[in-house]
Amino acid sequence: MSRPVRVLGIDPGSRTTGFGIIDLVGREYQYVASGCIRTIPNDELAGRIGVIVQHIDEIIETYRPNQAAIEQVFVNVNPKATLMLGQARGAAIAALVLRGLPVHEYTALQVKQAVVGQGKAAKEQVQHMVVNMLKLSGTPQADAADGLAVALTHALRGYGLAGRLGGLAIKGGRFQI
Amino acid sequence: MSRPVRVLGIDPGSRTTGFGIIDLVGREYQYVASGCIRTIPNDELAGRIGVIVQHIDEIIETYRPNQAAIEQVFVNVNPKATLMLGQARGAAIAALVLRGLPVHEYTALQVKQAVVGQGKAAKEQVQHMVVNMLKLSGTPQADAADGLAVALTHALRGYGLAGRLGGLAIKGGRFQI
Repeated sequence: MSRPVRVLGIDPGSRTTGFGIIDLVGREYQYVASGCIRTIPNDELAGRIGVIVQHIDEIIETYRPNQAAIEQVFVNVNPKATLMLGQARGAAIAALVLRGLPVHEYTALQVKQAVVGQGKAAKEQVQHMVVNMLKLSGTPQADAADGLAVALTHALRGYGLAGRLGGLAIKGGRFQI
Repeated sequence: MSRPVRVLGIDPGSRTTGFGIIDLVGREYQYVASGCIRTIPNDELAGRIGVIVQHIDEIIETYRPNQAAIEQVFVNVNPKATLMLGQARGAAIAALVLRGLPVHEYTALQVKQAVVGQGKAAKEQVQHMVVNMLKLSGTPQADAADGLAVALTHALRGYGLAGRLGGLAIKGGRFQI
């Protein structure tokens, strides 16, 4: 029996990085884990980056995903905030590629379209759909839900392979199950 | 005999990341290595970050520095360029902290003041001083010279420890030898 596809989704942030892990079993999604990586406020940059990469490394070690998806970040008007967000995102991608994980990128628009069905969805709608699709008993924290939403987007879009494999019917960003 | 202090200096960039390694032997600096890490133009982000982290990882594996210093980057007016530079810098710091290296940050102003003696120095002056201080037979490429300059800055500023140790006489950012 082949190993199921296990996706690690990351929603990067300079203060909080959300993550979510799902399995695709047949054509069903199963929740595996989710959570938030929080950096220490006012810690120096190397310390904050250390927290992000070490936690992502532990998550990979523990759950052994075979695919990774990361949200493309909003380009802020504040250059310092943009730089900080870029550094956090670069560190997260570094942790993924150092473990040999293929990394796929999705915009916030793609995530909302895939999970909610329309690009202007509110954060609460994303959380709501994540709870529904993964049959969760509680609502995960917003950043953790975003991590799960990115992982679901990667699954819903055919793991970036649908076009090549031609075996998955995709319409409007959702599988037709 | 204790191991000499070996500093890896990094000048991060979205296209080219310069690096330089120096040893402090007694109160002398010795050149160890320097070079440039070039990402593949138009490669996807994960590929470019992969090149940066894997090369830094190899450099650490090969030369085994025990200190790291990285230049603080210029906050660009172009948000996309700032984000990209942030991602490259975050990836470089991630590679350093994952190897357990203490990372110190220096602004371009601090580097120029430490190496040339004044903050408004041109790039060529930095290269010239790096060649002089390390008694090099040729001039390293600009990004490699910047990597060496960051490493020298860390040494000249007492490895970020001078204030605590109180054992090094520093004036105007330079050791008094």
